[in-house]
Amino acid sequence: MARRQLLAHLAHVEFFSPKLEESVTFFKEVLGLEESGREGRSVYLRCWGEYYQHSVVISEGPEPALGHIGWRTHSPEALAEAVQILEASGQGEGWYESTPGHGRAYRFRGPGGHLNEVFWEVERYIAPPGLRSTYPARPQRFTGRGIAARQIDHITVASLDVMKDTHWYCETLGFRFMEYSVPDEYPDLIVFAQTTTNEKSHDFGFVADFSGVPGRINHFALFVPETKDLLRAADILLEAGIPIEYGPGEHGMGEQEYLYFREPGGMRVEINSGGYRNYVPDWEPIKWVASQGSNTMYRNTAMPDSMTESFPLAGQSFPEPAAMAKPGVINFFGQPGRG
Amino acid sequence: MARRQLLAHLAHVEFFSPKLEESVTFFKEVLGLEESGREGRSVYLRCWGEYYQHSVVISEGPEPALGHIGWRTHSPEALAEAVQILEASGQGEGWYESTPGHGRAYRFRGPGGHLNEVFWEVERYIAPPGLRSTYPARPQRFTGRGIAARQIDHITVASLDVMKDTHWYCETLGFRFMEYSVPDEYPDLIVFAQTTTNEKSHDFGFVADFSGVPGRINHFALFVPETKDLLRAADILLEAGIPIEYGPGEHGMGEQEYLYFREPGGMRVEINSGGYRNYVPDWEPIKWVASQGSNTMYRNTAMPDSMTESFPLAGQSFPEPAAMAKPGVINFFGQPGRG
Amino acid sequence: MARRQLLAHLAHVEFFSPKLEESVTFFKEVLGLEESGREGRSVYLRCWGEYYQHSVVISEGPEPALGHIGWRTHSPEALAEAVQILEASGQGEGWYESTPGHGRAYRFRGPGGHLNEVFWEVERYIAPPGLRSTYPARPQRFTGRGIAARQIDHITVASLDVMKDTHWYCETLGFRFMEYSVPDEYPDLIVFAQTTTNEKSHDFGFVADFSGVPGRINHFALFVPETKDLLRAADILLEAGIPIEYGPGEHGMGEQEYLYFREPGGMRVEINSGGYRNYVPDWEPIKWVASQGSNTMYRNTAMPDSMTESFPLAGQSFPEPAAMAKPGVINFFGQPGRG
Amino acid sequence: MARRQLLAHLAHVEFFSPKLEESVTFFKEVLGLEESGREGRSVYLRCWGEYYQHSVVISEGPEPALGHIGWRTHSPEALAEAVQILEASGQGEGWYESTPGHGRAYRFRGPGGHLNEVFWEVERYIAPPGLRSTYPARPQRFTGRGIAARQIDHITVASLDVMKDTHWYCETLGFRFMEYSVPDEYPDLIVFAQTTTNEKSHDFGFVADFSGVPGRINHFALFVPETKDLLRAADILLEAGIPIEYGPGEHGMGEQEYLYFREPGGMRVEINSGGYRNYVPDWEPIKWVASQGSNTMYRNTAMPDSMTESFPLAGQSFPEPAAMAKPGVINFFGQPGRG
Repeated sequence: MARRQLLAHLAHVEFFSPKLEESVTFFKEVLGLEESGREGRSVYLRCWGEYYQHSVVISEGPEPALGHIGWRTHSPEALAEAVQILEASGQGEGWYESTPGHGRAYRFRGPGGHLNEVFWEVERYIAPPGLRSTYPARPQRFTGRGIAARQIDHITVASLDVMKDTHWYCETLGFRFMEYSVPDEYPDLIVFAQTTTNEKSHDFGFVADFSGVPGRINHFALFVPETKDLLRAADILLEAGIPIEYGPGEHGMGEQEYLYFREPGGMRVEINSGGYRNYVPDWEPIKWVASQGSNTMYRNTAMPDSMTESFPLAGQSFPEPAAMAKPGVINFFGQPGRG
Repeated sequence: MARRQLLAHLAHVEFFSPKLEESVTFFKEVLGLEESGREGRSVYLRCWGEYYQHSVVISEGPEPALGHIGWRTHSPEALAEAVQILEASGQGEGWYESTPGHGRAYRFRGPGGHLNEVFWEVERYIAPPGLRSTYPARPQRFTGRGIAARQIDHITVASLDVMKDTHWYCETLGFRFMEYSVPDEYPDLIVFAQTTTNEKSHDFGFVADFSGVPGRINHFALFVPETKDLLRAADILLEAGIPIEYGPGEHGMGEQEYLYFREPGGMRVEINSGGYRNYVPDWEPIKWVASQGSNTMYRNTAMPDSMTESFPLAGQSFPEPAAMAKPGVINFFGQPGRG
Repeated sequence: MARRQLLAHLAHVEFFSPKLEESVTFFKEVLGLEESGREGRSVYLRCWGEYYQHSVVISEGPEPALGHIGWRTHSPEALAEAVQILEASGQGEGWYESTPGHGRAYRFRGPGGHLNEVFWEVERYIAPPGLRSTYPARPQRFTGRGIAARQIDHITVASLDVMKDTHWYCETLGFRFMEYSVPDEYPDLIVFAQTTTNEKSHDFGFVADFSGVPGRINHFALFVPETKDLLRAADILLEAGIPIEYGPGEHGMGEQEYLYFREPGGMRVEINSGGYRNYVPDWEPIKWVASQGSNTMYRNTAMPDSMTESFPLAGQSFPEPAAMAKPGVINFFGQPGRG
Repeated sequence: MARRQLLAHLAHVEFFSPKLEESVTFFKEVLGLEESGREGRSVYLRCWGEYYQHSVVISEGPEPALGHIGWRTHSPEALAEAVQILEASGQGEGWYESTPGHGRAYRFRGPGGHLNEVFWEVERYIAPPGLRSTYPARPQRFTGRGIAARQIDHITVASLDVMKDTHWYCETLGFRFMEYSVPDEYPDLIVFAQTTTNEKSHDFGFVADFSGVPGRINHFALFVPETKDLLRAADILLEAGIPIEYGPGEHGMGEQEYLYFREPGGMRVEINSGGYRNYVPDWEPIKWVASQGSNTMYRNTAMPDSMTESFPLAGQSFPEPAAMAKPGVINFFGQPGRG
């Protein structure tokens, strides 16, 4: 914490889709993103509230999977310092020169095998006349199209060793470790951890993965400002015939409202809103036991087993899919009073 | 529909509590109601937005159960006409003279054994200085205490024959029959029906009861204006240590948002918000199949079996508690796309 | 109140626009209505939540003005009874046979010269495949397009004699008289009155008109369910470059949230949300003094003088345009405390 | 931007009240804060969502005025670096040893004469049993009492030289300069500037002060999460008889919703919600012209002149109080279309 702040924010997520055009159409028409460019078999998109060229990259691939995670640093010096640290860590993969929308990026893989990149130079988004906003500070006008997600919020990867990944990213790049959760029956098994570069509980989450397959992703999230926007999103999905996998509901962890579903290529996407605003620089991570509501704060529904699936799909994702959920339900009927 | 409108609105619900004082304290401190009087072992309460003396009556009793349901008629003539019709129906029980807050009431039992009363004369609530509102049209100022329910919304009784009850109340007292639901596996078994005297889907609901015990109640509901008020109510309950039995969520039927829990005496209470505004006088009832989301519009959670319990508690409430819920889940995973 | 309920609800409003196509495009793209048909120089539109063929009719005309106001009766018998009463009143104009979307209508002019019609037979709206909703009870799916107004809410006409009009409609057709307002300096000058056929404060309002021109309209309103929908509507208007004439704010009268603007043809349209739900059949009208917040409940802004303009535009609409507003401001600084 | 991040967040604001007990009661009962201690003629309070001992300090004084502004640094090293910089700047006033709730603080005055302090050590707030939350990460349970402000948001001081203050704080302590506004008639007169340590548009604002009196405060703000919470706050104030000076409305700058009023001691307090989430480390300040809606985004109301009063009250606060507001109105009628 004492040293320079290295990362400014999560800038973009690239994922693979076996149905590129269907995925792109869904992100534009249902989620409300704008297409900002194409290159090869990749399509670049941005939410209406974003200041750079893109925050979501959809690349054609054989199955839904993580491409890479892009972080913008806090300054050119911070980028240099981050690269130095990453090279020293032995996880560095070198510079990646050309990417539409931002300058050279240094790529590396966390211990869990997830591909990340850090960069400083970005190309600002300038709206064309038809998309200019009446708010001088908005990069683009609010169109209200579909769910109209405002900006990228976070990514949650599947981790073969939650604490190893969590500590590595915190120590290497200065994430704050905010909260973590364990099943009631396995008080020492940390199944979910949240780390962040900002005031929210996480822009980088780690969920336990027992598949043995490295580098998988569970989901990434786009942000809408208020609960009502999230409930409107649920109505848009219902009326568009898109099943809602989980939610709308509130995670106890981070106090964030959630809504999970699958895009046409099979990837899980979350729309989230709310959450606390925590600026404590020396925050000490909070432990949750599932039955306290780490997942469903209302403690009266079980997270569907399907939520433990990560991408690419592998054999067994989780030994007891309901481990995080069942206790909440048992507990609900077992301990009606809660002080 | 052609004749005079008989009922103006649901005026009050009386229920029995084995823990009178605890129930009263809960309704005042957590739900935000005001106590307007006591008589014998009954306590009279009203929500801050109500114009009469009371909308909820809690009477001491051996177990949670329905006392009676009070309906105000549309006029003195409407009361006379209603009494005539009720007497002719053979379900009448005669006049009940003295009740605090309103004039003589004619009592009757529907075919399902539920005790109701109709009356015209009421005593308007006049707020004492400390509770006067700055809005001339408000009966009392908004205190914001606890959940601060604004007014009574509806009652849902347990019915041994849903269609028999539904038709009887519609034909006898002119309720509109709005929507009904059947389990996917039993397309002819109507397990829930909604009837109304107003613009909402129901102020009188009937849920299937297989216990053989007549006159039971499933829950009654208090209204808060918006979704956000309902979610705030959930936070108030969580922080007060009150388990939330079901919700927050949205019923497909009526588009109403729900939040169910048990008050200290054991009775199920609902806080609801939202819902459509339907003024069609010749509305034709809409049929729902459970998997369409009649209960949980998001179609990804099962209503907990406990919700099929009605009061007083009896043996078996429902042959297959999950009948309404499971299909939704099966269907959810079975038919991802829905147009 | 004692007799049969005659009117079920406000069904539609017809207004004239000098820019027919621009007005139609605005109602479809910005307000989110659907076009359901055209005949001659009239275009028929409906909000997504409406059950009949249309709720707004835009007809080509030399200047913005009221066409007619359509009310559906509660039953065929209610229509017969209403017609009898209207003919006896001497204000009847006879039957109007052919109109797309509903059966024969009986037309009449209130004492203030506003053209109305009452009818019973309607053609239900059946959504085409692409617009079918996943909610069986919705007439059409929620598209989320633009402001996505859900249904017509009310109309407010300019009245040469507010109390004369108010009493006539209440006595003739059974409206409930809910609230009225007077300027602080003229305690006997009723400048606004609200009457209703439903649970809200008004679906028919009357604002004082000193122009001497009969039959003018001040505005009509479309409903969105919650405050957040109204604020989203304001953002949509801002980003579409449509000036907001007044609002968003809350009227003390009816507790309704408002947002006023002009459509391309010059007519004032309101988007409103909220409001109380009042089912009291023998309600006694509430008097407001402007400084109590009848107009702007927050009592710290003046209604712009432009709001006193009614259509067709005439010479002087109001002797002292700020009469309703200024007192609120004077009062705000003059009497800080309010109990 | 390149160096270490010095400040973590705004920690507390101290102001003077001539009516200490009345002010304290108001902050507790109406705003919903908790009293965490007293020392001498100072009372320490905190919002329910805050992690330290206090965020608001009310000290007895002859008239409403600013006491001091407290900032927590990002680390002990950051404190050391900040003190070094402040001492070098010649604005330092030295260490201030004993304060309840946090360790030694280094005090300094910005060029405009406003007293600030920076510190690192804090005492965490531990809730007593009755106030413990069911959310492990919440410092205290949500009580829902009154407006129930969640945490301190920002302070806006009156500045004799807006740009001088703005640049000094940015260069000295690393604030980001986000947005600023000029009246339409005086395109070179910057009357308001927003600087921030976090993702919002400002936790430190500077409004032009022409009184010649240094060190004055215009207001400080407490945060509620959503628009609906802010509108509920307005209802609580209205029903408590507290005049609302300005709002509810939305500032174009920062997209923040506002509600301004005076506490019993005379100090202006704001409740705010919403606002964008901007993580761009090299953000370039955005210029607003008043008529664009910098103040009232809806561009149809004038900010009341009273808002230009700062504390302690002095002679003339502003040459043309309506300068920021009038253009908006003129412009509104003058340029109806806005792209």
